[in-house]
Amino acid sequence: MTKSQPLTRHIISINDLSNKEIETVFDAAQDFLQELSDRDVPYRIGCGSDLASKFILASLFYEPSTRTRLSFESAMLRLGGANITSADPAVSSAAKGESLADTIRVIGNYADIVVIRHPRDGAARLAADYAQVPVINGGDGSHEHPTQTLCDLFTLRSKKKSLKNMKVAIAGDLKGSRTIHSFVYALARFGATIDPLPAPGMELPAHVVGRLREEFHCRMISKAPRPGTGSIDALYVTADQPHQLSLYAEPEIDYGLALQKKTDAVYVTRFQKERWSEKERPYPKIDAKFLGEPKYAEASVMHPLPRVNELDAALDSDRRAIYFRQAAYGVPVRMALISLLLHLHKNKSLHKFAGGFAKSDLPLYAQPIGIGIQCGNANCITGDPAERQYAANKFYLMKEPSGQRCKLRCLYCETDIEADAAAHFVVGDLVRKTFSPGLDALARTPDERLKHLVVYKDEADAKAAGLHERESAKRARTG
Amino acid sequence: MTKSQPLTRHIISINDLSNKEIETVFDAAQDFLQELSDRDVPYRIGCGSDLASKFILASLFYEPSTRTRLSFESAMLRLGGANITSADPAVSSAAKGESLADTIRVIGNYADIVVIRHPRDGAARLAADYAQVPVINGGDGSHEHPTQTLCDLFTLRSKKKSLKNMKVAIAGDLKGSRTIHSFVYALARFGATIDPLPAPGMELPAHVVGRLREEFHCRMISKAPRPGTGSIDALYVTADQPHQLSLYAEPEIDYGLALQKKTDAVYVTRFQKERWSEKERPYPKIDAKFLGEPKYAEASVMHPLPRVNELDAALDSDRRAIYFRQAAYGVPVRMALISLLLHLHKNKSLHKFAGGFAKSDLPLYAQPIGIGIQCGNANCITGDPAERQYAANKFYLMKEPSGQRCKLRCLYCETDIEADAAAHFVVGDLVRKTFSPGLDALARTPDERLKHLVVYKDEADAKAAGLHERESAKRARTG
Amino acid sequence: MTKSQPLTRHIISINDLSNKEIETVFDAAQDFLQELSDRDVPYRIGCGSDLASKFILASLFYEPSTRTRLSFESAMLRLGGANITSADPAVSSAAKGESLADTIRVIGNYADIVVIRHPRDGAARLAADYAQVPVINGGDGSHEHPTQTLCDLFTLRSKKKSLKNMKVAIAGDLKGSRTIHSFVYALARFGATIDPLPAPGMELPAHVVGRLREEFHCRMISKAPRPGTGSIDALYVTADQPHQLSLYAEPEIDYGLALQKKTDAVYVTRFQKERWSEKERPYPKIDAKFLGEPKYAEASVMHPLPRVNELDAALDSDRRAIYFRQAAYGVPVRMALISLLLHLHKNKSLHKFAGGFAKSDLPLYAQPIGIGIQCGNANCITGDPAERQYAANKFYLMKEPSGQRCKLRCLYCETDIEADAAAHFVVGDLVRKTFSPGLDALARTPDERLKHLVVYKDEADAKAAGLHERESAKRARTG
Repeated sequence: MTKSQPLTRHIISINDLSNKEIETVFDAAQDFLQELSDRDVPYRIGCGSDLASKFILASLFYEPSTRTRLSFESAMLRLGGANITSADPAVSSAAKGESLADTIRVIGNYADIVVIRHPRDGAARLAADYAQVPVINGGDGSHEHPTQTLCDLFTLRSKKKSLKNMKVAIAGDLKGSRTIHSFVYALARFGATIDPLPAPGMELPAHVVGRLREEFHCRMISKAPRPGTGSIDALYVTADQPHQLSLYAEPEIDYGLALQKKTDAVYVTRFQKERWSEKERPYPKIDAKFLGEPKYAEASVMHPLPRVNELDAALDSDRRAIYFRQAAYGVPVRMALISLLLHLHKNKSLHKFAGGFAKSDLPLYAQPIGIGIQCGNANCITGDPAERQYAANKFYLMKEPSGQRCKLRCLYCETDIEADAAAHFVVGDLVRKTFSPGLDALARTPDERLKHLVVYKDEADAKAAGLHERESAKRARTG
Repeated sequence: MTKSQPLTRHIISINDLSNKEIETVFDAAQDFLQELSDRDVPYRIGCGSDLASKFILASLFYEPSTRTRLSFESAMLRLGGANITSADPAVSSAAKGESLADTIRVIGNYADIVVIRHPRDGAARLAADYAQVPVINGGDGSHEHPTQTLCDLFTLRSKKKSLKNMKVAIAGDLKGSRTIHSFVYALARFGATIDPLPAPGMELPAHVVGRLREEFHCRMISKAPRPGTGSIDALYVTADQPHQLSLYAEPEIDYGLALQKKTDAVYVTRFQKERWSEKERPYPKIDAKFLGEPKYAEASVMHPLPRVNELDAALDSDRRAIYFRQAAYGVPVRMALISLLLHLHKNKSLHKFAGGFAKSDLPLYAQPIGIGIQCGNANCITGDPAERQYAANKFYLMKEPSGQRCKLRCLYCETDIEADAAAHFVVGDLVRKTFSPGLDALARTPDERLKHLVVYKDEADAKAAGLHERESAKRARTG
Repeated sequence: MTKSQPLTRHIISINDLSNKEIETVFDAAQDFLQELSDRDVPYRIGCGSDLASKFILASLFYEPSTRTRLSFESAMLRLGGANITSADPAVSSAAKGESLADTIRVIGNYADIVVIRHPRDGAARLAADYAQVPVINGGDGSHEHPTQTLCDLFTLRSKKKSLKNMKVAIAGDLKGSRTIHSFVYALARFGATIDPLPAPGMELPAHVVGRLREEFHCRMISKAPRPGTGSIDALYVTADQPHQLSLYAEPEIDYGLALQKKTDAVYVTRFQKERWSEKERPYPKIDAKFLGEPKYAEASVMHPLPRVNELDAALDSDRRAIYFRQAAYGVPVRMALISLLLHLHKNKSLHKFAGGFAKSDLPLYAQPIGIGIQCGNANCITGDPAERQYAANKFYLMKEPSGQRCKLRCLYCETDIEADAAAHFVVGDLVRKTFSPGLDALARTPDERLKHLVVYKDEADAKAAGLHERESAKRARTG
């Protein structure tokens, strides 16, 4: 590597890109879209930049895919590059029990950039930790699918003028859909109002709602409140304060207006049957009847595809349907992202969060898996036996809005563990063999001591690990 | 698309190409074969036209394949193009329940041309209906496999001088082999005499025989007639009248000569065990003993491969064996077809049936699936639940040779439904809630009324749909 | 093909390359490694020779693989070539029962070079017998994995100066690991001392040890002898005599020194669970504790990967760990091998054993499968029903060191069949219907008679085949 080598960037979450960077991706995508459309002979694809000639993209897919994998590979070919593909875990080394951490370190020698899809939440982040080349998350469990969101936003941008003041209804499985999770973060960051229409029992996960409120400054506004329910599906989510760097500068948001205005887009997702044990469930069906409501008169209909039954095929000829355009834009948008991550543009680049949306710089707690508190998400990559040696219990220490209590956020899958009445965190000191309640001990301890400090879910866990309560803490408690 | 954009052509059936067009494909293939053979250094493949540079072929294979897929991909690479591949339905969106219609609309944005293989008859035609780029049928159920037939004919042409006056024996599974179906249409169109040697119970399907007789003007001539059987395997199939545009113009056929002359080629197919429930069946075995008969002394031995046990490996060194050449010609023939469909040749092109073999321009009846008569072929793509929303009950109205009765031919799988004593078609009028016998109502009704007319298999079905017999029809019947 | 066409070379065993040729491969690999490292822009892979432009590599993988397949494909792309891939036997023609012999003859028309992986020992040799283009063995059953060995040796060469006088410990499954088998042959040929550390019951196979001793002139030297055991794991294997053409010329080996000196490398392999019926077994674990022994203080730690639990992840940051480098060198080494086999270098080439390590020119016995003696290795490709028509009972006639008795070595899987007290070979004469003991009859019979002579495992088998003992033999025996 030469001295001028820029940082290797990974796109694991949509939040790994600032608003400004997303704008840069869209500018490049617009150029590529133009190239792809300028065909000088029939069928001739004019895109001849050969920008990525001699570069190799590796597709590592541990879950079924047509759209995502083939659009990445098509994008790489349209850039003049080439592909190597592992599309089926059953015929790869994963069948021999190889860890993701080992696989990615090896593949990083065979390719210049990697796109990965994996059934575990947080798998792509773990892969990035071990990769020497850029890693793009092509979907990890129920966590995120950032490049789908880039396609979605790019399509909305081409249809509407601004995401600001926009109202987007999201329907279906809001819990298990990684597409939805990346999408709502982006909508919130660009100041859109979100109208959740979940299938029963498939509401947005609490940690996603928490992030919308706490990090992306969304306000939850009651719709017609339903008696006896405080569930999030009865709320609108609207940007609560102007973002300094939203994509398209707009005056202040009028919340009343946001609630009254008509819906600009209805975004439907399929029932993710591979993530639910039941085969059938009540599920919203978007069809001409649904869209007959006046508020949807001008609503674009979006779907990340594949659809099963939740989106009526009769809508395909409806002028509001833009879901095939969403799919088509997968190529120029992914061409843009790949070429930017490979630093192939002369006058465009991804600046690491310069002046843009800033990822919170939270203190990180880390211990080997098997010691202390564990991510509570059973599908987290840290729960995969093959990865035990390579992942760790890594948590961000999050301040509650009250400032009184902390919670922990898993570095990989980004789900939160909150202390509650039944489970107070305690911090154990492996040297002194003592523990004390709360997470304060982590904050007040000099860095070099941190490795002796272990967080336990509660006192019982700490005692089971052979620690006893610190005298001062006991006195304070019983005092 | 520019104004000069030619039509997007799909090759679903060998009958989608006129004889003249097949000749054009062979001319281009001959040039490519020459290029591939002119190696200036050891192993150097001299084919450097880069004709398809910047073009992408998508291989969508829903059934196992080595030969067809890899020869298409090799052909695309030899043309300077690139490939994206979905080789296993279990690791694609099909595993999530996606319809073919949706998949092809998406893939059409990622690639410039698509080859598809599918277990359902008629699947490729459905795909073509929804594709914005050319679709090539790489084999659909038991229906057709037109590019295999192009390879077969090209190999025969290179070995013999003319298909006219040629006698070709076809042995094995004539019922389930899509390869055979495409092949016999082509043989008939080029004036060859066909000698069917089916395994017991695996005779040519009635609808294929019907087309040979009615559309391709074949005469069925009795071989030594077997007592108590009128099955087609006791017949020769010979061209009954000169074709205006056969590949190699020849004087009139002498039928007597055709029957007496020796066999020019024996074409064997494997037992398609994936299409039969039994594992084992009596099956012809082509070996030295079989070919020892004097009439096979100069017969080329052909096989589309893969073979299992029906073709003795000891024949591999027999001078009559040309089956590996058949496989080898897959590359130049497919190079020719791809480059012609992409309009990459300056002085060669596929003219849409100009002056050539003319596909019959039959009236088409269409109703949504679930209403009225259904294709009787259980393996037709119209019977696939995932495609219900996207396919339709589409039938050509065919005149019987007598001119008295009609039959229906499924647009997708091309099997026929014939009325018989037990099942008289009736046409229902959804506005008047009446039905009348026969299909005449369709013909005599102005076009704008057609959508109210539904064909039912018989009276019982029409009554079950809540219709009652038209008074005039009842009077006519009861007289 | 032109007159100047060189021989088509196949790399099935590491012993298909002379020491001099291995050196040539490494010289080319070193050049490619330099090219790959000279990146003039960030991430830019400078390797732009386009040496293999217009060439196609076919990957035929009948067993899971990530590393081998993707590194071959990456190597081909870095050379400017292209790939066609069959990565999953379940979606290929193998699912239809196609033989390897047929498949390779077809694929040889689609690609210019083929890499094959197969679960059967000897499969790659059978493939090569039928291929018209070079075949590289990407791993065949428990037999060999020669390109892995090239990567291993290249890595060792880059780390140490010479393989001569080197001591390499090999740990784990020495029985089922094809990687180990190719590796020990190469180590022996380059004069290294081998220290086997097998898991219990996973010792080097007898036929491998036999070849080390008889062909590669290794001496087995007792380590601290364990009472009551003469198993090979208690031995060192050292080169017994100077090789005329070892890679790095060195003075005579001092055996005492070889035994005393410290270990230069520890090579670990994983438990090949797919080749053993038990799920768990006692297995060596290489970790900091193991490597804490003084003799391993400077030992490089090697592993062909994937690893499961036999190699502690904590070693990844140990300076002695070179296993990821082994994987990374897969690309330049395979670039070298591919380009040399395709004759793409102006001033480098693989000379067919010219002056180098000479493969023994042993007489070959051949009979169709089903007649006479059969390879005793149940996993040999000759035992695969699909290949019965294409393989044969082919055995080299090997002289025992004593010169008294012969043994047979299977041409495909290279396992030996030795006569013992319970089973004396006999040779039957199918014309005279007699048999006589021993293999002498083969040697003293003129060539044109050989096809009438059949080897049987013992008298009982010969009698079961309807032969009777030759009178002279009977007299000699009872005499």
